Amino acid sequence: MKIPVGILGATGSVGQQFVNLLRNHPWFEVKALAASERSAGKQYKDAVNWILNDPIPEHLSQLTVSDCIPDLPCKVVFSGLDASVAGEIETNFARAGYLVISNSRNHRYDPDVPLLIPEVNPDHLGLLHQQKYGSGGIVTNPNCSVVGLALALKPLYDRFGIEALHVVTLQALSGAGYPGVSSLDILDNVIPLVAGEELKVQTEPNKILGTFSTGKIEPAQIKISAQCNRVAVKDGHLECVSVKLLQPAPESEIIETWQNFRSVPQELELPMAPANPIYYFTEVNYPQPRRHRNLDKGMAVSIGRLQPCPVLDYKFVLLSHNTIRGAAGAAILNAELMLKQGYLAN
Amino acid sequence: MKIPVGILGATGSVGQQFVNLLRNHPWFEVKALAASERSAGKQYKDAVNWILNDPIPEHLSQLTVSDCIPDLPCKVVFSGLDASVAGEIETNFARAGYLVISNSRNHRYDPDVPLLIPEVNPDHLGLLHQQKYGSGGIVTNPNCSVVGLALALKPLYDRFGIEALHVVTLQALSGAGYPGVSSLDILDNVIPLVAGEELKVQTEPNKILGTFSTGKIEPAQIKISAQCNRVAVKDGHLECVSVKLLQPAPESEIIETWQNFRSVPQELELPMAPANPIYYFTEVNYPQPRRHRNLDKGMAVSIGRLQPCPVLDYKFVLLSHNTIRGAAGAAILNAELMLKQGYLAN
Amino acid sequence: MKIPVGILGATGSVGQQFVNLLRNHPWFEVKALAASERSAGKQYKDAVNWILNDPIPEHLSQLTVSDCIPDLPCKVVFSGLDASVAGEIETNFARAGYLVISNSRNHRYDPDVPLLIPEVNPDHLGLLHQQKYGSGGIVTNPNCSVVGLALALKPLYDRFGIEALHVVTLQALSGAGYPGVSSLDILDNVIPLVAGEELKVQTEPNKILGTFSTGKIEPAQIKISAQCNRVAVKDGHLECVSVKLLQPAPESEIIETWQNFRSVPQELELPMAPANPIYYFTEVNYPQPRRHRNLDKGMAVSIGRLQPCPVLDYKFVLLSHNTIRGAAGAAILNAELMLKQGYLAN
Amino acid sequence: MKIPVGILGATGSVGQQFVNLLRNHPWFEVKALAASERSAGKQYKDAVNWILNDPIPEHLSQLTVSDCIPDLPCKVVFSGLDASVAGEIETNFARAGYLVISNSRNHRYDPDVPLLIPEVNPDHLGLLHQQKYGSGGIVTNPNCSVVGLALALKPLYDRFGIEALHVVTLQALSGAGYPGVSSLDILDNVIPLVAGEELKVQTEPNKILGTFSTGKIEPAQIKISAQCNRVAVKDGHLECVSVKLLQPAPESEIIETWQNFRSVPQELELPMAPANPIYYFTEVNYPQPRRHRNLDKGMAVSIGRLQPCPVLDYKFVLLSHNTIRGAAGAAILNAELMLKQGYLAN
Repeated sequence: MKIPVGILGATGSVGQQFVNLLRNHPWFEVKALAASERSAGKQYKDAVNWILNDPIPEHLSQLTVSDCIPDLPCKVVFSGLDASVAGEIETNFARAGYLVISNSRNHRYDPDVPLLIPEVNPDHLGLLHQQKYGSGGIVTNPNCSVVGLALALKPLYDRFGIEALHVVTLQALSGAGYPGVSSLDILDNVIPLVAGEELKVQTEPNKILGTFSTGKIEPAQIKISAQCNRVAVKDGHLECVSVKLLQPAPESEIIETWQNFRSVPQELELPMAPANPIYYFTEVNYPQPRRHRNLDKGMAVSIGRLQPCPVLDYKFVLLSHNTIRGAAGAAILNAELMLKQGYLAN
Repeated sequence: MKIPVGILGATGSVGQQFVNLLRNHPWFEVKALAASERSAGKQYKDAVNWILNDPIPEHLSQLTVSDCIPDLPCKVVFSGLDASVAGEIETNFARAGYLVISNSRNHRYDPDVPLLIPEVNPDHLGLLHQQKYGSGGIVTNPNCSVVGLALALKPLYDRFGIEALHVVTLQALSGAGYPGVSSLDILDNVIPLVAGEELKVQTEPNKILGTFSTGKIEPAQIKISAQCNRVAVKDGHLECVSVKLLQPAPESEIIETWQNFRSVPQELELPMAPANPIYYFTEVNYPQPRRHRNLDKGMAVSIGRLQPCPVLDYKFVLLSHNTIRGAAGAAILNAELMLKQGYLAN
Repeated sequence: MKIPVGILGATGSVGQQFVNLLRNHPWFEVKALAASERSAGKQYKDAVNWILNDPIPEHLSQLTVSDCIPDLPCKVVFSGLDASVAGEIETNFARAGYLVISNSRNHRYDPDVPLLIPEVNPDHLGLLHQQKYGSGGIVTNPNCSVVGLALALKPLYDRFGIEALHVVTLQALSGAGYPGVSSLDILDNVIPLVAGEELKVQTEPNKILGTFSTGKIEPAQIKISAQCNRVAVKDGHLECVSVKLLQPAPESEIIETWQNFRSVPQELELPMAPANPIYYFTEVNYPQPRRHRNLDKGMAVSIGRLQPCPVLDYKFVLLSHNTIRGAAGAAILNAELMLKQGYLAN
Repeated sequence: MKIPVGILGATGSVGQQFVNLLRNHPWFEVKALAASERSAGKQYKDAVNWILNDPIPEHLSQLTVSDCIPDLPCKVVFSGLDASVAGEIETNFARAGYLVISNSRNHRYDPDVPLLIPEVNPDHLGLLHQQKYGSGGIVTNPNCSVVGLALALKPLYDRFGIEALHVVTLQALSGAGYPGVSSLDILDNVIPLVAGEELKVQTEPNKILGTFSTGKIEPAQIKISAQCNRVAVKDGHLECVSVKLLQPAPESEIIETWQNFRSVPQELELPMAPANPIYYFTEVNYPQPRRHRNLDKGMAVSIGRLQPCPVLDYKFVLLSHNTIRGAAGAAILNAELMLKQGYLAN
C-alpha cells in the first residue's frame, strides 16, 4: 500500500521533475496533480508543456489537473509552485492538515520551518512540532546552489569548524526554469548574475548547519560571500569554494572526512539516498557538470581539486545536480526521511 | 617611414593575432614572419592554418616564412612562440641585438625582464638597462588572465592598498590556442582547470604592481588565491574578484577611482591604447563576454557588480579580451610605449 | 539635408537593428521611434530591452517613443512590426500617405506589393503605381531565409533557367527574435522546425524571380521543396541547396556567373549595397556562419561547395546574415533604391 | 559460458564504446583489449584517455593491453581501429581464423564482405561463405550516417520501391572521434563538411539494400545525393530526407509501414535489438537529437515531419544515435545475429 501524494505546481519545470522522479517510487504514489486555474480541468498531457527527455508516465498523462485548493485525495503534497503564489497556497494546505514538502523559497526562512537536508540536519524536523498547523505542516529544502554546498561543508563543520566561506557558482540553465534563459543571452556568453541567488547562498547554510534545541534553531555563524554566474550548461551547478576553518586540518584528513561521510539517509537506506553523499575525485580536471551530474541518481555531490588557499585555508570545486539533488530529488528524500521517522503516519 | 618588425611564431594562434592587429599599424610594418622548420620556406598562406575571421593581409599572404634565427630584416620582433621553444629562441634574438617583445611566459619571471602593462608599470621598462643583451632586450606582457586583473587593481592599490585577493576565472576557449579544447570536452560542460594558470594568477600581479628602484623590482605583497575554469565562450575572460583593502573605501569612491583612471598610454595617445582603460557598468548583469569583450578595440577592461564582500571587503566582476588585451594587443601596446620612450630608437 | 524617417516597432529586435544600422546613414535620419502603447510616451532607452552589442545611439536614447499612428514627423517609415499587428498598421500609414518599407510578412503576398531585392527585381518597384494608397505605398523585403537564396538563384535563373530546387536550412537563433528560442531547447540540440518557414521558402522565390509587365507580376515556375531547422548559431542562416537547371551548365560557368554578378545597387553605389552580392569560396569547408556572416557589412551572400548532384543537377551551400541581409539591412537597401529611383522624392 | 571476445583499437573512441556497451553483455565477455604499440603492455586504465561518462568497467581497467596481432585469447574480435591501419590488421586476423566484426570503413566495399544491418539485410551474412579466410571472416556495419537512413528506407523500399533520395545531414561531434572537432571551430558555427562522408552516404545504401543471390550482392539502383554538415550537438545525427518512390503511397501508409516494421533481430530477441526499430513522432518539432538519441538503448531510429515534397515525393526528418546505432551498438547487434545464426559456433 503506497502513500498517496499530490503535486502542487505539477505543470511547471520542478513539478514535472516530481512527476518524473516519483514514476516508480516504492513508497509514494502520485494521486493528484494540481496547478493554476489555466490548467485545472484539463488532462495533464494537454495542460503541460513537457520538457523532460523521458516521456510522461502513462498513468498520469490522462489524469485531470486539479486546482491548488486543499481537497486533494492525499495528505502529503510536494510543492513546486512558483514563488509568486507558493507562500499562500502552501499555508492553506498546511492549515487544512496537509504535510507540504516544498521546493519553493517562500517559507524557507520561517523560524518554525525546517530547511532540511536529511544527511545534514535531520533533527531539524523537530521544528514541525512548533508549527501551528495542527496535523499539517511545511518542510522545505534549500536553494539548488546550497544543497551541494551544505553537504560538502557538513563533515568539515563538524570536525574542524568553519569560520568563513567564499563561493563562486557556475550555474546551469535548468535552474532558471522553462523557457528561462534566452539562447541569445547565453550562446558564447556568461551572465554574471542569478537574480536573488547570492543572498540565498549567503543565508541558508547558516540555518541548515544551525543547532536545534529547545524548539528552535540557533544558526551557525559562518561568514559567507557568494558570486553567482549562469553558464551554458544544461544541468549541474559547479561551485568554486574557499573555506577558513577553525582548526588546522591536513589535506588528507579533509578528503578522508568527505569520503567517510555517511548519515541518516544512508543508514535508513532511503530509496532516493545516494550510497555515498560525497565523491572525491583525484583527477585534476574533475568534477565536470556533464560527466558527473548524474552520479548516484543525481543525488551525490562531486568534489575535486582540494588545494591550500593563500587567502583562506583551503579551496576546492564541487558539483551537484541542480534539479535533482537541488530540487525535486531533495524534496523526495525529505519525504522519505519524514516517513521513516513517523511524520507521515496516518 | 614605419619601423620594420618581425613576428616569431607567426603561424600559431598568437602569431596570427599579431599579423592581424598590425595590419595597418601607423608605426610598425611587418617585414618578417618566422616560424618552425616545418613552415620555413613556404609562403605564409600555405604555412598557416589561418583561424581568424578577417582574411590574411594581402601583402603578407605570399611572404616567405623564415626560420626563427636572428637574421631577420628588422630590429624588433614580436614573439608568439610556444613556451616549449620560446625561452631559448628569444634569448638568441636578444643576444643578437633584437628587442624581443614577447607574449610567452618563459622570461616573465626573470628578475631583469619587465612584465609590462603600460598603464600600470611603465617605469619597469627601466629594467632593460639591467639586461646583459647589449643593444638587444626582452620585454614581456602578463598572462591573459592577469592583464585585466592588474588593470582593475592598479587604481585601488595606489589609493587604498590591497592586502588580499580572491579570484575565480571563467576563461574563454581561445586562450587554449588552436585546436585547443575539444568540442566534446566543453559542450554542455565546464572544465574546472586551466593547467598552470592558477599559479600565474597568484604570482604575476605582485611583480607587476611591484616598485622599481635601484635597478630592481620590489614585488607587492598581496595574498592571492585563484581558481581557474574553462567555459564555452569564444573570447573574453570573466573574473569574479574579492579584495581586502588596506584602508577603508566607500563604494562610490572605488567606482570613481576606476572611472577616472588614465595613465601614460592615454597621455601619449598610443595607437593601441583604449580611451579609458576601465569601464564601469551599472547594469546588474554586466559585464558579459560576448557583449563587452570588444569594447574600445578589445583593449578596455569592463567591470561591474561592485558589492560589499562579507568575507573580504569588496567583490566585483571584470572582463577583458584574452587574445587582444591579454596577448597580442598587450604586446603591441608595449612596443608603442617603448617607441615613445626611446627604447626602439635606431 | 537628410530625409527624416521613422521606425515602426522600434523596440523589437528588428526595430533595434533599424536603429543600429541607420546610426550614421548618409541619406536617412531617424526622427521618430514608434512602438506599442506600452512603450509610447517613454524615453526610448527606458522602453527598449536593448539586445545588440553596440550601444543605443546617443541622440536616440532619450527620444520619446510615439504611438504607431500616422502622425510622425516624416514621410518614410521602416516597419519591424510584429506580424500580429503589422498588417493593419502598415495599411493605415500607407493610406495616410507614408511610404512603408516593411520587413513584416503581412503584405508580402499582396499582388500590388513588391517583394523587393534591389539586385534581383528592382523593376518590381513599378508595382507601387498599382497601389491604391495615393502618395503612400508599401514595399516589403523577403523572409530572412529567402533573400540569400534568391540572390544565389538570380544569375543562374537568368542564364540557365531553373526547373526545381531543394533547400534544407540551418537557421540562426536571432531569426526567432528575443527572447525567442529557450536555451534549454537548443543546447546540444537541433530543432527540425521553424514554424511557417517552409511555406515561405517554397513560395517567395517565385514571386521575386517573376516577370513584371503590364502592371503585374507573372511568377516564376520553379518547383521548390524546403526543410527548415534551427541550430545553435547566433546569426547567419546556412542553406544546403540542390537545383535542377533548364539548360546544361558546366561547373566553372556557374561559379563565374556568380562571381561576375553585379546589379543596380552596385551600379548606383547604394550605401548599404555590398561590393559583390555573391562571394564564392573554394575552401572545401566554407562558408561558415561565424566566419562569413559579416562579409561586406553583412550584406553579401557567401557560397561554396558547388558539386554535381546525383538527383538534381548541382548542389551547393550558401550563407547570409539573417538579421542584416535578411531583415533590417534588406529594407534599408530597398529604401536606398527607392530614393535613387525617385520614389521618395518630396 | 559466455563467448570470449577481443576489441581491436580498444583505446580509441569507438573502442571505448565497445568496452562500455559490452560491460554486462549476456553472451559475450571481453577477454582481450588490443591497441597500438604505444599502448600495448600498459594496463588499460593507463593506456586509455577515457572519455565516456560511465566509468571504465572495473574488471577491465587493469587488463594489460595487447598488440594488434592475432594471438588473442578469443575467436571473435570487434574492431574500432582507425581506418589508417584497420585494412591490414583486420585482414591478418581474418586469415588467422578470427571473425572480425568491424566498424571501420576499409572492407565495407569488398564484394565478399557483408555491410550488415540485421534488420535490413540479414541474408547478406551468406557472403561469408565467399570469403577466402577459412574459418575466419570479416563483417562490417555501415557508416554512422547510413545505418539510420537505411533502416528508414528499408520498409519503404520493400513496399513502394525507391527511385531517388536527397539527404542533408546535421551530424554530431562525437562522429569525429576525440579530440575531433576543435571547440573554436564549432561554437556559434556550423561546418558544412564532413570529410569523405557524402560519398559514403551516396554509396552504402545501395549495397545494403541490394539483393543477395548466387553468392553475390546485386546493388539497389537508388540515385542518392548527400550534403553533410557538422553541428554543435554531442551525439545523434539528424537527417533531412526527401524520397522519390516507384509507386504511389498515401502518407498514412508510409507511417504505418514504419510503425509496423519488425525484422529478424526483433524475432530473435537479440539483446541489443530495439523493441521497435523505428519510432514515428507526430509532434511537429520532433525528432530532436538531445531528446531522442537514447530511445530504446540508442538503437531505435526516430522519424518525424513526413510531408509531401514538391520536388520528389515525400520528405521527412530522421535521427539516430551515431556512436551506438551508428557504430559500436551496430557491430554488437551484428555479432548477436551471427551467433544466433550459427556463424560464431565453435
